[in-house]
Amino acid sequence: MKKFAVILSGCGRADGSEIHEATCALLAIDKAGCSYQCFAPDIMQAAVINLLTERPVDEKRNVLVESARIARGNIKDLKYFNPADFDAVVFPGGFGAVTNWCNFATKGVDCHVEPEIRRAVWDSYKQGLAIGAMCIAPVLIAKVLGSEGVHVTIGNDTATAAAIEQMGAVHEKRGANGVFIDGKHRVATTPAYMLAASIKEVAEGAENMVAGLLKMI
Amino acid sequence: MKKFAVILSGCGRADGSEIHEATCALLAIDKAGCSYQCFAPDIMQAAVINLLTERPVDEKRNVLVESARIARGNIKDLKYFNPADFDAVVFPGGFGAVTNWCNFATKGVDCHVEPEIRRAVWDSYKQGLAIGAMCIAPVLIAKVLGSEGVHVTIGNDTATAAAIEQMGAVHEKRGANGVFIDGKHRVATTPAYMLAASIKEVAEGAENMVAGLLKMI
Repeated sequence: MKKFAVILSGCGRADGSEIHEATCALLAIDKAGCSYQCFAPDIMQAAVINLLTERPVDEKRNVLVESARIARGNIKDLKYFNPADFDAVVFPGGFGAVTNWCNFATKGVDCHVEPEIRRAVWDSYKQGLAIGAMCIAPVLIAKVLGSEGVHVTIGNDTATAAAIEQMGAVHEKRGANGVFIDGKHRVATTPAYMLAASIKEVAEGAENMVAGLLKMI
Repeated sequence: MKKFAVILSGCGRADGSEIHEATCALLAIDKAGCSYQCFAPDIMQAAVINLLTERPVDEKRNVLVESARIARGNIKDLKYFNPADFDAVVFPGGFGAVTNWCNFATKGVDCHVEPEIRRAVWDSYKQGLAIGAMCIAPVLIAKVLGSEGVHVTIGNDTATAAAIEQMGAVHEKRGANGVFIDGKHRVATTPAYMLAASIKEVAEGAENMVAGLLKMI
């Protein structure tokens, strides 16, 4: 049974991991006959957003604690993530990818990446794990692996695609449920809600991503 | 295109709607070629539970605002739910079903049901909608429609099954991904995480429930 690590950034599209994307990733892994373990960094969220109003509220929430909602409590602090224990690692999307894992949302190309997140991406890459990322999360992969010339999807957002190329990565266009498989770097990415019109397309993209990852393991 | 309403009770297994169940319900509806609109009551949660520690924390959260995370912001106050606009209504599980929608978790058979939730169940029933419920949520259906002799699943929890029968309903045993279709009352229920060993079974149960509902529309 192949083992997947799934890294989360909170719980909700606007300030954490996108719930449908994360859940569809877990479902795709399970349907493929593989196991998963969730992880998240033990850091405070950059913001807490009211999803009804789309506006920030005056609350403090912890990325690991909120991510535990998606993981049903079965989650570990990212500092305990050891790539040697896994065959693949998946980074679902959601704005937490560019506000909690790194600050690309405010700093762009020159963003800071949380050390434990950088380590998770880089060590997974160096140890030969297959790496999956959905929606906006490929920005993180581009930031950490841009120097390696990694190829990733982002959808069709030209500004983000340009930023990815500035990081040294190569942007690949794919449809909502499509996947680009960079076999050289063992990275599979899918646009998900950067383009998806409904959850069905996100689920299809997650299944295509997991199938792509399994081919590279 | 058949129209589904999906009623939520917050965001997370221990104090709201179970995220995998709610997401798998939305996915099953979309895969079946139907549309959905999410609703939740604009009330405060009975508790806020840290999913890492499983313990309550000293915070206040609103059911509608937190449910909006699962709905990606596309959600309405339950008071605007009009059964005439829909063909079916679905109640995912999660502990919020028995702590926020009603207080069965603390009061048992004699629990109080939030008026807007009672109205949503009763008016949907009287207007002939197909009603779906997952996991622990059939307790709510039993409480509101027990006088009608409704049949529902709960899994194999004998105490909860006994409570359901005390409410006048009939308990039906089904497996994790099974569904009981009460054609007389147009109610389809599935045990989901009352029994499921993994998310795949929850997704299968959601698809079986939606298929059962579509047969009754």
